[in-house]
Amino acid sequence: MPGNPHTVRSFDHDINRLNQTIAHMGGLAETQLVSALQAMEQGDTDLAARVIGADGQVDGDEDSINEQVVRLLALRQPVADDLRLIMSSLKVASALERIADHATSTAHRVEVLRQSPHIPAIRSVLRLGWLVRDLLKESLDAFLAQDTDRAHKVRDSDREVDDLYSSLFRELLTYMMEDPRNITPCTHLMFIAKNLERVGDHATNLAEITCFIVTGQQVTGQRPKADQSSSMSL
Amino acid sequence: MPGNPHTVRSFDHDINRLNQTIAHMGGLAETQLVSALQAMEQGDTDLAARVIGADGQVDGDEDSINEQVVRLLALRQPVADDLRLIMSSLKVASALERIADHATSTAHRVEVLRQSPHIPAIRSVLRLGWLVRDLLKESLDAFLAQDTDRAHKVRDSDREVDDLYSSLFRELLTYMMEDPRNITPCTHLMFIAKNLERVGDHATNLAEITCFIVTGQQVTGQRPKADQSSSMSL
Repeated sequence: MPGNPHTVRSFDHDINRLNQTIAHMGGLAETQLVSALQAMEQGDTDLAARVIGADGQVDGDEDSINEQVVRLLALRQPVADDLRLIMSSLKVASALERIADHATSTAHRVEVLRQSPHIPAIRSVLRLGWLVRDLLKESLDAFLAQDTDRAHKVRDSDREVDDLYSSLFRELLTYMMEDPRNITPCTHLMFIAKNLERVGDHATNLAEITCFIVTGQQVTGQRPKADQSSSMSL
Repeated sequence: MPGNPHTVRSFDHDINRLNQTIAHMGGLAETQLVSALQAMEQGDTDLAARVIGADGQVDGDEDSINEQVVRLLALRQPVADDLRLIMSSLKVASALERIADHATSTAHRVEVLRQSPHIPAIRSVLRLGWLVRDLLKESLDAFLAQDTDRAHKVRDSDREVDDLYSSLFRELLTYMMEDPRNITPCTHLMFIAKNLERVGDHATNLAEITCFIVTGQQVTGQRPKADQSSSMSL
């Protein structure tokens, strides 16, 4: 019954609800990331524990998005733009769930960092963290506004994340070489940095999904390869 | 038109095709993992390059699975068991894509390992690799046969993966403390080990999806928390 105003209105209502759940899930994922970074910055193990405890809330939103998508596909049989938007929601939910996972992984390492010698490079890790948080926020806003200009800017910024991560990897290797007591905390900082670099990747994916929804075309331009660190040695 | 023999036969045909694509994708992901492990074992950078080059094939299967699912949902409007199976295929495809990503990440580190001092712990990393490969194979077979007994065994084996990973993390820290020249290769081995531990997690997810498809119930029993290493220090 395309064109029937009642059906169309219900469909718009369903799409709005789906977008609201995505916005809610995005807000949760962002809050988890911010809290994990603050916990690391302040050595606050209580806050880290709260991040770990809240992980299930994000999963709940993902389940809700999956259910809404199944319902929408079955009842509304969307085509073209609407189908693209609805199926993309599954990928967005999966990306947000993984971002929240990376926040939780970061929170798990706060305790051991607090008990280890202070590594000045923690400031660089936090800088990377705040940068990917900005990218996440920007990519979520671009998705919700279906704004391809903002989405393209996120995609361009991913190179900055990769460069920062690669130089950080080298910096942490140097601290480990200098003093064996630095090895344990630097190892954990490396894993945290890798988590944050992955958050940047997911934010970029989110930006590419936004472009795909709006234009119907996959973004094909060369994207700078992440993680130069995999071939790095000192 | 439920019950119409022609429609039912077409539906079965579509489901078979979907399962064949999943089996194909699973085979590719497993081959990528095996090749990455062999490349590491033999310091074979050509093989590592082939793993990196073949990454796109896995993504192609994932796209095909996504398209088939959309088509099935739109044309067949499945309910209950069928709907569960079809929507679960998306999660299976996503898990297999991530497994292949972990194989590629491993392959990226073969070159730097070959140029670094030999670390005896590489044998433990390979042992972890072959263990998760077995789990992946078993979880795929369980999925394709919808065999919950085999799926439960995979789930139980994940603890073995986590224990091996945690002891490996400690072993690698020890090598780093012993000699600063070990720091670079051990760092890369740690990231490889983390990749392999994640493959084990995805195999376990696959097993849980199988149980969900067959029984309609989420597996709820406590699953031993992965990665004790995040609180580990030396």
